[in-house]
Amino acid sequence: METFGVTYRVESSTTEIEARAQGIAVEQSVEVPLQAIHRADILSDVVSKVADITEVEPGKFLVTIAHNVENTGHDAAQFLNVLFGNTSLQSDVQLMDVTLTDSLLDTFGGPRVGMTGLRKQLAAPVRPLTATALKPMGLSPAELGDLCRAFALGGLDVIKDDHGLADQRYAPFDARVRACQAAVDEVYAETGHRAIYTPNLSGTPSDLYRRVDQVHELGVGAVMISPMLVGIPVFYELVRDRLRVPVLAHPAFAGALRINPELLLGKLYRLLGADVSIFPNYGGRFSYSKTGCLRLANNLRQPWGSLKGAFPAPAGGMTTERVDEMIDFYGRDVMLLIGGGLLTAPNITAYSRAFVDKVHAAGEGGA
Amino acid sequence: METFGVTYRVESSTTEIEARAQGIAVEQSVEVPLQAIHRADILSDVVSKVADITEVEPGKFLVTIAHNVENTGHDAAQFLNVLFGNTSLQSDVQLMDVTLTDSLLDTFGGPRVGMTGLRKQLAAPVRPLTATALKPMGLSPAELGDLCRAFALGGLDVIKDDHGLADQRYAPFDARVRACQAAVDEVYAETGHRAIYTPNLSGTPSDLYRRVDQVHELGVGAVMISPMLVGIPVFYELVRDRLRVPVLAHPAFAGALRINPELLLGKLYRLLGADVSIFPNYGGRFSYSKTGCLRLANNLRQPWGSLKGAFPAPAGGMTTERVDEMIDFYGRDVMLLIGGGLLTAPNITAYSRAFVDKVHAAGEGGA
Repeated sequence: METFGVTYRVESSTTEIEARAQGIAVEQSVEVPLQAIHRADILSDVVSKVADITEVEPGKFLVTIAHNVENTGHDAAQFLNVLFGNTSLQSDVQLMDVTLTDSLLDTFGGPRVGMTGLRKQLAAPVRPLTATALKPMGLSPAELGDLCRAFALGGLDVIKDDHGLADQRYAPFDARVRACQAAVDEVYAETGHRAIYTPNLSGTPSDLYRRVDQVHELGVGAVMISPMLVGIPVFYELVRDRLRVPVLAHPAFAGALRINPELLLGKLYRLLGADVSIFPNYGGRFSYSKTGCLRLANNLRQPWGSLKGAFPAPAGGMTTERVDEMIDFYGRDVMLLIGGGLLTAPNITAYSRAFVDKVHAAGEGGA
Repeated sequence: METFGVTYRVESSTTEIEARAQGIAVEQSVEVPLQAIHRADILSDVVSKVADITEVEPGKFLVTIAHNVENTGHDAAQFLNVLFGNTSLQSDVQLMDVTLTDSLLDTFGGPRVGMTGLRKQLAAPVRPLTATALKPMGLSPAELGDLCRAFALGGLDVIKDDHGLADQRYAPFDARVRACQAAVDEVYAETGHRAIYTPNLSGTPSDLYRRVDQVHELGVGAVMISPMLVGIPVFYELVRDRLRVPVLAHPAFAGALRINPELLLGKLYRLLGADVSIFPNYGGRFSYSKTGCLRLANNLRQPWGSLKGAFPAPAGGMTTERVDEMIDFYGRDVMLLIGGGLLTAPNITAYSRAFVDKVHAAGEGGA
């Protein structure tokens, strides 16, 4: 029998932790009192087992549960349920980490394009990638197209929609994507710089299927999806069965649960196919720690079975002044995403160019 | 311009709360510094506004933000994003409540069947409904069918899959649903009691579409879905465009703490189409308070625009002994869900019958 490990952080007293850990193992598998189970093979194989309990500080424990791989049904939704279904409703527990088997890694498959593929698409074998966002909501398709053109002329690699751009009346999906893709196509014809316009895909599955077809028809170079908004299994299915271009994962709605972001945005989004994972950078307006951000970034790009690596894209509070600090900290396998900092500049193209030049200079130098 | 209100609980000092509230309003709408916005109508109409700040205890505030309805794009995924997209990543904020306009209520539509429709389907105009769950994972389709038969003979109204039953090798979806539906059909032919077998639908959108077609073909009477596992917009689309039978919402992966369960399981699941919403009962193995459970139940069934009411289904730790307490507390518009308590009984049909008889007697009596 093949098992995989899931680690939770549990608040408990020392006297109660063994029973509490056993409770989680039962809750996350058979969810009945064990005396209601009359088959020995279910008790031995289907009921999850407590594999380890480690006290990390007084009253806080890391509990690792071993689950039978078969309990996941090799399905993304049921996999999430095994990880944190009912236990997400218990306020003394946080989901911290997973240790997956090669068979589960192969089932979900990870990035299709990955860091290497995206570097190839951008002809950028070594340096950090640069990215920005089209904002704010409320602009018309023509205005978004103009902004996209200004960014592309500034030399940015990836120009993504704000994740709040859906299919609002002021900028319907189809008109917006046409205007922005036309802008990057024009800049390519004029300058030879091929920026990747990256529309945000949102909506129900039917909306998403239709929009994937649209972006393929228009020759769009990448897309962005918020897995927690559309549903993690939807993200997985789109990556696996529908999308032919790289996908950036956005963390919106990802904090609604008590899941360690190093796991959710680092490992799980990569596992399910993100080529880039955007996350709140330290020192911005979110509360992520510096060491946590580095672990998250490393979860995305370090070797993991046969999975391709994915780019970490720290975002929030990025400025040109922070470029050297960011590259020193994250290394060159990173996508640096600058947002509001560009939009307040008097000349957007010139400021974009300054940001891009700084990244290229810093990122192409020594080690 | 039509706006709707979203209320957050925010930890802050008194001196900082106004700026913090304004920060949330910007984060949940345009997500750029306001000086980057050059159109007056975006500043006035698209940027969300702080509508109210109330200190509820020292250092804790309820902040209500007014959002332009258009920002939602009338789309379930973007609606979630407006409610709690980026702000979910900020640990000082919890999502507490929404106040929706009639137009948003009509956009999402709420239950199709509702309490009245489900009562009609079960020929139970007044009394509480009874329900139980098929467990544990690991049983074969034939064993699950036998268990379903035992429950149906005991007179239960609704016999649902455990939410962990997906499409595992030990009980593939198709074989399991056929066996369990055959069991309730046989009991109906033998006794005239029509129990509703309620399979759990899980998986990617394509899996779900296929399974909805299967359950319709087999004459299944209701289904269960965990909106947070499959994705809330997926749940919404299935209800609106595909399902012809009532739907029970299961709270798996719905988390604790960061989104008020009275909102998520009470209002939002109803808004998006749940006919029944299962939630952790007070006094069980989850940490929900008694008053919170009652408010959650009332959110499901009280008048709300033109929306039908949905049944509250408190679950976890239910026993026959608690029936009177439950009906006294929740009233008769409730589905009482008993799980492990039945499975440990020596005679499942007899114990089910005792539970059902107690509910019928208590629920058909006086006021």
